[in-house]
Order: sequence, then C-alpha cells, then structure tokens
Amino acid sequence: MRRVRRAATIDDVAREAGVSRQTVSNVLNAPGIVRESTRERVRLAIDRLGYAPHASARRLRTQRSSTIGVHLDPFAGGISGVVLDRFVHALTERASDRGLRVLVYSAGSPEEEIARLRDLREGGEIDAAVITGTFSGDPRIGWLDARGLPYVSFGRPWGSETSDAPLHLWVDVDGAAGTRAATEHALVTAGATVAFLGWPAGSATGDDRERGWREALVAAGAEEGARLFAEEDVQAARQVTLRALDAGEPDAIVCASDTLAVGAHLAAVSVGLAELPIIGFDNTPVAEALGLSSVEQRPEKVAGGVLELLMGDSGRVVAPRADASDAAPSHVLVTPRLVVR
Amino acid sequence: MRRVRRAATIDDVAREAGVSRQTVSNVLNAPGIVRESTRERVRLAIDRLGYAPHASARRLRTQRSSTIGVHLDPFAGGISGVVLDRFVHALTERASDRGLRVLVYSAGSPEEEIARLRDLREGGEIDAAVITGTFSGDPRIGWLDARGLPYVSFGRPWGSETSDAPLHLWVDVDGAAGTRAATEHALVTAGATVAFLGWPAGSATGDDRERGWREALVAAGAEEGARLFAEEDVQAARQVTLRALDAGEPDAIVCASDTLAVGAHLAAVSVGLAELPIIGFDNTPVAEALGLSSVEQRPEKVAGGVLELLMGDSGRVVAPRADASDAAPSHVLVTPRLVVR
Repeated sequence: MRRVRRAATIDDVAREAGVSRQTVSNVLNAPGIVRESTRERVRLAIDRLGYAPHASARRLRTQRSSTIGVHLDPFAGGISGVVLDRFVHALTERASDRGLRVLVYSAGSPEEEIARLRDLREGGEIDAAVITGTFSGDPRIGWLDARGLPYVSFGRPWGSETSDAPLHLWVDVDGAAGTRAATEHALVTAGATVAFLGWPAGSATGDDRERGWREALVAAGAEEGARLFAEEDVQAARQVTLRALDAGEPDAIVCASDTLAVGAHLAAVSVGLAELPIIGFDNTPVAEALGLSSVEQRPEKVAGGVLELLMGDSGRVVAPRADASDAAPSHVLVTPRLVVR
Repeated sequence: MRRVRRAATIDDVAREAGVSRQTVSNVLNAPGIVRESTRERVRLAIDRLGYAPHASARRLRTQRSSTIGVHLDPFAGGISGVVLDRFVHALTERASDRGLRVLVYSAGSPEEEIARLRDLREGGEIDAAVITGTFSGDPRIGWLDARGLPYVSFGRPWGSETSDAPLHLWVDVDGAAGTRAATEHALVTAGATVAFLGWPAGSATGDDRERGWREALVAAGAEEGARLFAEEDVQAARQVTLRALDAGEPDAIVCASDTLAVGAHLAAVSVGLAELPIIGFDNTPVAEALGLSSVEQRPEKVAGGVLELLMGDSGRVVAPRADASDAAPSHVLVTPRLVVR
C-alpha cells in the first residue's frame, strides 16, 4: 500500500509561518507586495508542509490557464526530426521565461490532433495552440478558426496564401533563401556547375527549396546544373548520386535536407570524391559530425516569433484576429543561415 | 486591436443543444452515461459556441490535475541528445493514452529545476514529476522527498543505492548489459582483440559501460584490449583513435557513445580501415546513416516503466512510498539491445 498524506491548508501554512491567512494569499498571488523576509518564511512553511494552493481557484477567477498546447509528433527517427525537437525545446525555454506553461500532446493524425485539442480546450487546460507541419488543405486550420482557439503555426498556410481563407498567424523558415545562400556560396567557392538533390516535385517545402537554387543560378548567370531526385532516405540519395557522378562530376551539390546530403556524401566518398562540396539543410548533428556545410533553420528564432505573434503587444495570449484590417503583423518569415564547414 | 469574445456559459450550451444543464454537465464529466446522439449534439453546440468548461472547477473537486511535469533540457546539440528527446516523445504518447497530461519545463540547473517544480506544484499544475539525468548528490531528490511530490527518475540514484537515503522510484538502462552484448558480438564476429573507447574514468554512466566490456572479455577468457579515453566529442575521439591505430590495429572497438563511435569511424576511414567494426551506444540517426552497429537504449521501454511506477496498480498517480516494506517494485532496469549493421 502506498500512503497519501492529508493535504495541508492555507491556514496550516499561516500558522506555521506565524503570519495571517491574507499574507499567505499575497505571497501566492501578489508576491511583489510582500517583504522578502516574510515571503521567504512563507515559502519555507509551504515547503515544509507540502502545501499546494490549487491555482485552479485562481484560474477560475482569471479565466486563463496561461498554457500553450504543442503537438509532439510520435518519434519517427531519421536525421531531420531533430529540427522540430529543437523548436519545442526553444519554445519551452522562452515560454517559461514569459511565465507561460507548455503542455505537449501526441497525435497520430490531423483528426486525432483536433480531438486532443478539443479535449484540452474543453478542459480549460490550454488557452492557445501551436501547430506544426501545416499542409495544403490542413483541416486543423478550419477547426481552430471556427473554434476561436488562439493559435500560431510553425509552417505557412500552403496553398491558401492568396485565397480568402481566414487569416492565420504563422511563422516559417524561408527555405528558398536558405538554398539560395547555399548555392551562392557554392558558386563562389566551388565552381559554376552546381547540382541540386531534392525530393520528387510536388511537395511545397521541397519546391520552395528548389526555387532558391534555381534563382541563385539565374542571378549569377550560371547554367542550370543537374536536378536529382530522391525520397528522404540516405540509401536512396546515395544511389541517385552515384548514378549522377557516373555521368559527370558537378562542382558542388546543394541538397534539400541533411539526410539527402549524407547520402550524397557517402556516394562521393565511395568514388574517391570525399572533398566534393555538398551542402545540406537543417544543420543536424550528422552534418556537423561529417563536416558538411548545412543551412540552419534557426528553430530558436522560430520559437521567438511564435510567442511574439501569440502574445501580441499586450504580453498576454490573444484571440485570433477578427479581420484583415488589423495592423499587427500576421506572420514571421525567418531567414535561415548557412553554416559553412 | 484584437477582439476577445464573451465566454459562453454552460446555459448557452444547454439552450443551443436543446438539452438540460445537467445533460451538458454529464457529457463533460461522465460521457459514458449519455446517449451517443445526445453527446454528439452537445459536442457540436460546444464547438459552435467555443465553450470551455474550465476543468479548474473539476480539479478543485478531484484535487488532482492528472498532469506530469517533465524537464526538457535546453537544447545542447550533439549526437546523443536525441535519446532524451525520444524518451519525452514516448512518455507523451503513453501518457496521452492513459489520460494524463505532460507539461514540459526548462531549467538551466538543478536549483532552477527545483524552483520550477515548486511553482508548478504550488500552482496545482502538476501532481507528479519525472526527472532525468540523476547524479551523485543530486539535490532534486532530497527536495522531492521532503516535499512529498510523487516522482520517478529516468536515471538511478547513483552513489546512494546502498545508503539509507529515502527510497526513490527510478527507471534506468542497464549500460553494462549493453556494452557486454556489444563486446560479445565483437568477440564472435571480429576477433579476440576488442578495444574500448570511453570517457575519462569517474563518470558513473561511463564506468558502468566500461564494466560491461571488461566483464565480457573476462567471461570469454579474452585478453584485455586497449582502453582509450576521450571527451564526448567527435574530433577528440578521432584523434585518440588515430594514435591508437598507429600503435596497433584491434579487431573491433566498442564505444561508450555514438559520438565517440563516429570519431573512431572517421579515424579508421582516414587510414584505410573503413571496414573496422566499431560499435556505438544510443543508436542515433548518425550511427544509422554511417552503417555503424549501436546499442539501443529503448527509450520507449523506459517511458513505459516510468508510467508504470508512477501510477502503480491503482492506475492513478501515487504518493512516494513511505517505507521499504512496500511490496511494489521500486525500480525498472531496462536491458538495451544491440542493433547490428
């Protein structure tokens, strides 16, 4: 049998600290107005007695939990998953600094995520949501808009930027700017023939990253290099690169991810081209370990942008904007930076 | 200006759904006793009105938030950080399945972590804690014990196993079993000379992993191989391994981490020994990408063990055990498994 203690009350704490009930309440609700020595005495009494004042009561008064719900994907492995984790780490750190709580939940599908958000919202356990991995036709957006739950997404509203879908607040990384910087660097340091290894066409994120490579080539007046395709998989990328190297050696390869870059690097090493410049995307520990340059998404900047949009000027979580005439910014586009190795 | 709507009340929902106030309350608190069609009608009304019933009121009644606080380290980069992230992912997933919430917080030091836990506890926002990265003389343990906050640690109470320190519930990975399995595999498949690349002596985790290697050699009657030391750093590991390979080539190298294994592998490749068997620890994406065997910690098992200990047989978060006569298990030691590549 495991024993449960009787819960201490606010009167127990007051008696133990030799102060009034009101003073204990002040320490909990308005510590700034209590002398430091008194505050310390009450804190010690709270610790000794294991008193938990149930902020639930405070919440009923303030009608806010100051808690943000954040989706934490089931762990899928892979090289680039670390970017989302870094984002959650950074968000947690910055939210803590602002006195906000972060509640994480898992969900296997957008529908399940909606169900989880509904439970948390109905329970008064969150008063805002941060969603990640937006996609064209994302059902979460419509639900959140209809429900009036404040939210910000890490990821832009792909496919609906120019439509009249309800405005939503988002932060994203400018992928095209990242591959543009990578390609410009390759043109200057390696040579005029820069290939691109990306995912099969049709993914919004992938097409965006390909665009940056193409734009840099056009701007420099360079000829278009080879365009290689592989799924997000080291071995697939290795094989595609091997075939390409067999047909001709580029001066450099810019990749849509570190996973692709590792595959390309292993291919290059296996044919004696260990020094072929290959630039990845995401700046993961793998790229660092192998000494590959990579585009850094700066998830810490993304987390800062998310909180800025969520809290607005008021320093409190704000409701979604009712119309487009609002002067406050509705999104933040973070410019990634190239880490050269 | 951002607009905030007037909050809907339970009466608004009842009117909208055409049911009684009690029925709405039942849907929220005991949905099992409400007909499905009625439940759906109430849910729709709740959605339409954006009603949030403030479980705070429920919490005051039940005196429990069903929320676990989990420390999320500031992101430190590196190869092996992914293990703790996998643990948090798995814990979130399993907790969600059991109807528990997971609240993450960041803290830069054990002292700061204690302050955060105190805030969360005082606010009634968590009713249990999961701590990670325990160490000898860890101040968090004494605080948690004194405070009576239920907790489980991922990491054993290093240095106090045999002392009369208050019992604490923990889950850990049997590091020695992992390196033992790795060494046995190397002895069978590579040869009798198996070196060990670990951290400088004196770290509890590192010494434990070294012990497994030594035990496997003794059990097999093999001679002790070289014992190499490096800090947790790819380049440091590479240099140490280069020097060792210069003095003589072992049949295999068992490493205390994937970071060390990557360094050893890069050293081997650079002297034409790309096929030298090198076994890492943590089974990170880097080991997978480079095709290195590695010991997998099974963070999903750890998360399962943590919840099992935390919730006990009762299926509810339990208070810490008051004495050692308790028949329930006080810890879970997860046996890692070798992933051969």
